[in-house]
Amino acid sequence: MIENKRGLLLVISGPSGVGKGTICKELLNDSTILSVSATTRNPRDGEENGVSYFFYDKEKFKTMIENDELMEWAEYCGNFYGTPKAFVESKLDEGKNVILEIEVQGAMKVKEKYPEGVYIFILPPSLEELKNRIIGRGTEDESVIETRMNQVTRELSFASEYNYFVENDKIENAVKKINAIIEAEKAKSDRCSAQLI
Amino acid sequence: MIENKRGLLLVISGPSGVGKGTICKELLNDSTILSVSATTRNPRDGEENGVSYFFYDKEKFKTMIENDELMEWAEYCGNFYGTPKAFVESKLDEGKNVILEIEVQGAMKVKEKYPEGVYIFILPPSLEELKNRIIGRGTEDESVIETRMNQVTRELSFASEYNYFVENDKIENAVKKINAIIEAEKAKSDRCSAQLI
Repeated sequence: MIENKRGLLLVISGPSGVGKGTICKELLNDSTILSVSATTRNPRDGEENGVSYFFYDKEKFKTMIENDELMEWAEYCGNFYGTPKAFVESKLDEGKNVILEIEVQGAMKVKEKYPEGVYIFILPPSLEELKNRIIGRGTEDESVIETRMNQVTRELSFASEYNYFVENDKIENAVKKINAIIEAEKAKSDRCSAQLI
Repeated sequence: MIENKRGLLLVISGPSGVGKGTICKELLNDSTILSVSATTRNPRDGEENGVSYFFYDKEKFKTMIENDELMEWAEYCGNFYGTPKAFVESKLDEGKNVILEIEVQGAMKVKEKYPEGVYIFILPPSLEELKNRIIGRGTEDESVIETRMNQVTRELSFASEYNYFVENDKIENAVKKINAIIEAEKAKSDRCSAQLI
């Protein structure tokens, strides 16, 4: 009686060090996949075109920008990175939920064009805990840690723009919560065409 | 880092015969309770005041209507039935999720005053299936069944006013879905006060 074939666009952000990458991998299954980004940087060993990234030259990337073929893009260390629309939309049409694990500014650009997306912000149990995780990675000195923490503060200032907050106290709890969000969002009446009468 | 102490107001409706009552009972646990309605009808054997219903006389009930102490009310077969605000709000304040299993018109009245509630409409797998369930109850003759089916059509016409559609193909699936909706709604950013910085 209820039909909802289109997949969900899941946009997941959170401060660096919060564990987004691990959470996103745990969410993958037959119906939920990761988006594949485009980049102009060179492939590294073992990276496969169309799997790790879509590798394009700068000219092609600029044409994609001009033709509005990217959901969001940014320049970082002299290279372009972005999310190709065609890949995401074809997967959504197939009924797959597509995860975009992107930073807050990209997410805000996506939200302007795709308000129907599900915007999830991953939070650490506490800032102290997050600082410990960043320090725990080892190599960084005091000034690097301070820069990171300032970036965290900036990222957190966007949190209220997201639909859901998920605390990553334990990976399995965060994953369970996001799977509940997926199940609930699929049941939203405005996503369903119900054959009512 | 995230705080969300207030419980959810869960308003659950659906055509008669769809299995709402069974589903609602299965949802009950330490954090999710049923609202207790008020009525002016006489208690039946075994019904306890404040548990089955709050039993009031008509004068008291009318005073409650005048004082806006009811979330919704209706007259049925010469008696009044309604949902007392005080009970529901004190339980929400305690952090309990409170279920109102009410018919569509009552639900629409509640929605006007409590847009933050979670409005869930239970659907049968098909109208045919629902008709079979109604017939399966036995005693009713053709004209009673026709009246019931007309009422079902009327009730279904309100479905799109609800936030979520849950199909009752199997009780355990419907219960699992509603529990996912509860978990997701608790994670909504606009219900959480996050201690972000």
